[in-house]
Amino acid sequence: MAAPSDEEGAVGPRCHHRSTAMLDVPFLPFCAFLGTLGLLCVAMVGTWCQHWRGGFSLDGSSRTFNWHPVLMVMGLVVLYGAAALVYRIPHTWSGPKLPWKVLHGSLALGAFILTVLGLAAVFRFHNAQGTPNMYSLHSWMGLGTVLLFSCQWAAGFGAFLLPWAPAWLRALYKPIHIFFGSTILMLSVASCVSGINEKLFFSLKNGTMQYKLLPAEAVFANTLGLLILIFGVLVVAALARPSWKRPDSDSPDSRQPLLSAER
Amino acid sequence: MAAPSDEEGAVGPRCHHRSTAMLDVPFLPFCAFLGTLGLLCVAMVGTWCQHWRGGFSLDGSSRTFNWHPVLMVMGLVVLYGAAALVYRIPHTWSGPKLPWKVLHGSLALGAFILTVLGLAAVFRFHNAQGTPNMYSLHSWMGLGTVLLFSCQWAAGFGAFLLPWAPAWLRALYKPIHIFFGSTILMLSVASCVSGINEKLFFSLKNGTMQYKLLPAEAVFANTLGLLILIFGVLVVAALARPSWKRPDSDSPDSRQPLLSAER
Repeated sequence: MAAPSDEEGAVGPRCHHRSTAMLDVPFLPFCAFLGTLGLLCVAMVGTWCQHWRGGFSLDGSSRTFNWHPVLMVMGLVVLYGAAALVYRIPHTWSGPKLPWKVLHGSLALGAFILTVLGLAAVFRFHNAQGTPNMYSLHSWMGLGTVLLFSCQWAAGFGAFLLPWAPAWLRALYKPIHIFFGSTILMLSVASCVSGINEKLFFSLKNGTMQYKLLPAEAVFANTLGLLILIFGVLVVAALARPSWKRPDSDSPDSRQPLLSAER
Repeated sequence: MAAPSDEEGAVGPRCHHRSTAMLDVPFLPFCAFLGTLGLLCVAMVGTWCQHWRGGFSLDGSSRTFNWHPVLMVMGLVVLYGAAALVYRIPHTWSGPKLPWKVLHGSLALGAFILTVLGLAAVFRFHNAQGTPNMYSLHSWMGLGTVLLFSCQWAAGFGAFLLPWAPAWLRALYKPIHIFFGSTILMLSVASCVSGINEKLFFSLKNGTMQYKLLPAEAVFANTLGLLILIFGVLVVAALARPSWKRPDSDSPDSRQPLLSAER
C-alpha cells in the first residue's frame, strides 16, 4: 500500500482547482437546455393525453383525469424547478435581493396553484366514477409531496417575505428551506414516474395494446418518465453546484423582508 | 419595502452561527436511527413477501419473483446507503483513509451483488412465465439505475483504489462520484416505490382484495414504500450536511490508491 508521494501531495490542491475549472459549465446555456427539456416534458405529457388518451374536458370522465398528469408535470416539476433555480441566475447576485425573492415566491405559488388544480382533476374524476381516492402508494406519496410543498411555501413566505420573523429564526430556517426545496422536487419526480407507470398499466391492458407488448404509447410515455427524471436530477445538480450559488448568500440583504418591520 | 436595518445586518452572521449550532444533531445517534429504519424496511419487505405473497423459492414461480423486492431493498437501498455514509463516521477522519476506502468499496460491491441477484430473480420469473422483460417504466428506470451503479463502482475502483489514475483525473472525478452517489440512491428509491405500486396493482385485483379497497396488505406495503422514501431522503440529507463531511476531504491521503504506483 503506497503512502502518498510528496509529488502527489504537492500537486494535489493545484490539480483540484484545475480539475474543478475543467468541469465549469456556464449556468445560462445549461439553464436554456433545462428550459427546453422542461418544455419538452410538458409538450410530451400533453401529446400523450391528447393523442392517446382522448384529450381534455371537465365532465368527470377520463378526459378530466387527463388534466392531472399535465398540470402536475407543469406545476410540481417544471415551474417548481424554475422557481428553485431563480437564485442561481448570476444577474440576481448584484443589487437588491427582494425582487428576486418575490419572483421566487410567485413562481412557486404558480406551481402550487397548478398542483392544486391537478389534484382537483383526479379527485373530480374519481368521485364521478365512484372510485375511492387515496389508496395507491402513488397517491400517498403524491399527496405527501403536495402537503410538504404547501408547508414549504407558507413557511418560506412567513420567514423570508413577512417582516415578523426574527433574524435568528430566518437563519435557522434557511438551510431547512433549501434542503426541502431539492427534496420536494425529488419526491415530485418519483410521484410522476410512479403515476405514469400506474396509468400505463391501467390503460394498456387489452388485446394488442397491452403494456407488456410495448406499443408506441408505452414507449412514448416511458420516455417521458425518463425525461422527467433527467430534468429533476439536473435541477437538483444545478442547485447543489457550489460555483453556481449566490456568493453572498449570508449577506444581511438575504434576510430583507417584503414589508417594513414595525420594531 | 424595508432596507435591512443596521441592527439586522450586525446580528446576521452571529445569528447564523448560533442557529446552525441549534440544528446540530450528533451523527452517530442519527446513524443508529437510520440503521434501525433500514433494517425495518428489510424486515417489512421480507414480511410482505413471506406473509402475503407466498414466500420464497427458486422454481420460477411468483415465489422466485419475491426475491426481487427483498434483494433490491437490501442491496440498492439499505446496503448502498450504508456504503455511502462510511466517510461521514467521525472515526474515519483521523489516521489513514485507505481502510475506509476498502470498506466503502466492499459495502458497495456487496450492494451491487445483491442487486444483480435481485435482477436475476425477476428475469428468471419472467422467462419462466413467458412474460416479456423490460417493458414498464419501472423496469427502464430500475435497469438504468443499476447500469449507473455499475459504472459508478467500476469508475470509483479504477480512480480511487487502483494506482494508475493520475491525481488530476481523481480530483476531476471525485465530485462527479459524490454527486452520482446521491443521485443513484434517489433513483433506487424512486424505482422501489414505482415497483411496490406496480406489484400491488398486479396482486390485488380480485374481489374483496382489490387495491382500491385498501386491504391490510396494501396499507402495509404502502407504508413500506413511504419508509423507503424517508430512508433515502435521510441518507441524502446526511450526505449533504456540511458539518458531517470529512474536514480534510482534499488532503493528499484522500487520493491514496490501494496498490503502489510504479511511476
